[in-house]
Amino acid sequence: MQKDNSSSTPAPSRLRHRRRSNEVIPEDSKANGSHLLVNDHNKYRSMLIRAYSSIWMIGGFAFIVYMGHLYIMAMVVVIQIFMARELFNLLRKAHEDKRLPGFRLLNWHFFFTAMLFVYGRLLSQRLVNTMTTERFLYQLVSSLFKYHMAICYFLYIAGFMWFILTLKKKMYKYQFGQYAWTHMILIVVFTQSSFTVASIFEGIFWFLLPATLIVINDIAAYFFGFFFGRTPLIKLSPKKTWEGFIGASVTTIISAFMLANVMGRFPWLTCPRKDLSTGWLHCDPGPLFKPQHFTLPGWVSQWFPWKEVSILPVQWHALCLGLFASIIAPFGGFFASGFKRAFKIKDFGDSIPGHGGITDRMDCQMVMAVFAYIYHQSFVVQQNLSVDTILNQILMNLTFKEQQALYIKLGEILQERLVGRS
Amino acid sequence: MQKDNSSSTPAPSRLRHRRRSNEVIPEDSKANGSHLLVNDHNKYRSMLIRAYSSIWMIGGFAFIVYMGHLYIMAMVVVIQIFMARELFNLLRKAHEDKRLPGFRLLNWHFFFTAMLFVYGRLLSQRLVNTMTTERFLYQLVSSLFKYHMAICYFLYIAGFMWFILTLKKKMYKYQFGQYAWTHMILIVVFTQSSFTVASIFEGIFWFLLPATLIVINDIAAYFFGFFFGRTPLIKLSPKKTWEGFIGASVTTIISAFMLANVMGRFPWLTCPRKDLSTGWLHCDPGPLFKPQHFTLPGWVSQWFPWKEVSILPVQWHALCLGLFASIIAPFGGFFASGFKRAFKIKDFGDSIPGHGGITDRMDCQMVMAVFAYIYHQSFVVQQNLSVDTILNQILMNLTFKEQQALYIKLGEILQERLVGRS
Repeated sequence: MQKDNSSSTPAPSRLRHRRRSNEVIPEDSKANGSHLLVNDHNKYRSMLIRAYSSIWMIGGFAFIVYMGHLYIMAMVVVIQIFMARELFNLLRKAHEDKRLPGFRLLNWHFFFTAMLFVYGRLLSQRLVNTMTTERFLYQLVSSLFKYHMAICYFLYIAGFMWFILTLKKKMYKYQFGQYAWTHMILIVVFTQSSFTVASIFEGIFWFLLPATLIVINDIAAYFFGFFFGRTPLIKLSPKKTWEGFIGASVTTIISAFMLANVMGRFPWLTCPRKDLSTGWLHCDPGPLFKPQHFTLPGWVSQWFPWKEVSILPVQWHALCLGLFASIIAPFGGFFASGFKRAFKIKDFGDSIPGHGGITDRMDCQMVMAVFAYIYHQSFVVQQNLSVDTILNQILMNLTFKEQQALYIKLGEILQERLVGRS
Repeated sequence: MQKDNSSSTPAPSRLRHRRRSNEVIPEDSKANGSHLLVNDHNKYRSMLIRAYSSIWMIGGFAFIVYMGHLYIMAMVVVIQIFMARELFNLLRKAHEDKRLPGFRLLNWHFFFTAMLFVYGRLLSQRLVNTMTTERFLYQLVSSLFKYHMAICYFLYIAGFMWFILTLKKKMYKYQFGQYAWTHMILIVVFTQSSFTVASIFEGIFWFLLPATLIVINDIAAYFFGFFFGRTPLIKLSPKKTWEGFIGASVTTIISAFMLANVMGRFPWLTCPRKDLSTGWLHCDPGPLFKPQHFTLPGWVSQWFPWKEVSILPVQWHALCLGLFASIIAPFGGFFASGFKRAFKIKDFGDSIPGHGGITDRMDCQMVMAVFAYIYHQSFVVQQNLSVDTILNQILMNLTFKEQQALYIKLGEILQERLVGRS
């Protein structure tokens, strides 16, 4: 994921005073595969800048993870807003926008409608769990929850009508293009972040491990490519090499297996958060996180000081995550590269020195976040978690009388089945 | 929604041999507001053609509704495929496509993935209800149901990788544009049709009434505009007039109130369909569909032969649907007009003589279908229906043991609350 693509012309000032992100680069000026970073005089300086901001990012990230679920969620939301801003700006034409007052505001109207839609449901459910005592607030939240979809639909339709009523002659094509672009951005940004937030509440583990694996894969690909890179991997991003790809894959898969063993031992990371409180988490971590002890064969203890190894069953799931993070998730990066090439931009933004915009750093994370959640839901969640989910639904959505009615009906059905079985 | 916009130049052959839909029309050739249909020699011929195909469409529609839920659903799916085909073709460039073998196939890959995603969940739930006896099939369907999301995600990612690996130099912009366009189409088409299908299973009433209201509103707007239209309504579609809009609104709202009274009396239309059988429906239609009798004031019976009127409570909901169908839903039409104008096309297709493509007829229906479902879910559904939904979930997703565990837990919680209350 090497960023500096004017590498053949030594111009260090470019690196310090970064080019504006939306600046057009001619398509044929790109470095071709045979000219790799190894021959580049700038590369050590570029690497230093990248390393410096990487350390800051990783440190900040670790601190936020330490603070807990709500802070991580806030981080996701902030990243989301910055990404949307970068992407909204990408295809804007200042000249056209001057003639369309309020057109940018409309984008943000859709953005916040989507936000209400995605997080409203997710949070109100946990908000209710947080405050079972306060009768009035409980009523308010659960009625908001009930009309949640209607409210969001109303807001969306208001934006839709606003769009139509502000259509301006000779600007139709630009406006429709922007409308479509806004929707694409919202889908990409919100699919990703809603899956991420959902994962966080299932236990920080399911967010932290995938995200870390992507970071490890990126860094490993950079270093393997840096020192051993020779064979170009894909035409879309000419600086990526097979050596980097394969080296990173092996590193990532091994890291996944090791990291899961470490992360899986902290209840802070493995317990799901079912309300919006910030207190310490206690739970039975379930069989996935219970260590199993295996005796190592004799020859290992001859060479290493270990006689026994303790494996958490979740490590096998971690292998799947590692495989995906190193083989499939990089396609998110290829997609972003192709996109930037298609629209002749260098980076999505310039907020992180040496890395480009926030979107440039999130490309693979987005693919990974969706996978991690779906994998967790499909192959990890124990069925007894589902019992809790449904129980939660019952307590959330039904009145006391309805809960009783449900209880009686369910009792009858189970009774019938029991009779049928015996 | 008058279609013939070359009305100022009398060229009857154009109407019979319709222009190819994608043909470019110059933006300034459009008729301006002051020149309304009344002065047009072609208009009676145009009206006849429209009326003829309208009668066929309405007749076919009525027959399909008579046949029942599954046939209506099949109709929605067929319409959906045709719409997707029209829209896929819209922004295609034959020249570019020749250089990209398999690129169209990719569109349909995404289409059928979306289809599996949307209908898989909806149908498998009802499929399970249909066959509680067959043990093996039950297991198969419920495991498909369990991995439904993972399967769809896998298919999507496969398409995503296919797209990236077939990116061709100098075609990037066209390919990314098509990728975005495909996603926009799928969102529009599937949002609409999944809401429609969901409404159908809640009771044909909730699909038939909104759809009919849009048809009535379109026809009424056409006739009111035809005979009284003078004042142009909106620049986007210069043939629409305030007279047509207002006349249609009044007609639609009155029709909504009347139609609900008629439709609300047939259990075939009002009962929800909870499985995939095609048999006759029996249910308690609920209080919304129980007639309430009101005695009319004396002066009415002096002029009319009625002394009493019987109102179904659902008629008040119908008024809301009527209001939306006549005030907000036409914005779907404006949006489509604006879109066609932006991309300089006359119609989306040419499959319905006198009307244009299927998409041209569905513009307002789409806005309405989403509203109807959300309105029904938010303001109509009685809470005791929710009890059934949750009961359904329990029987679908949990094993027998888990069902028992849930029953016991729920019992404990209710017991606690009862104690807390007394």
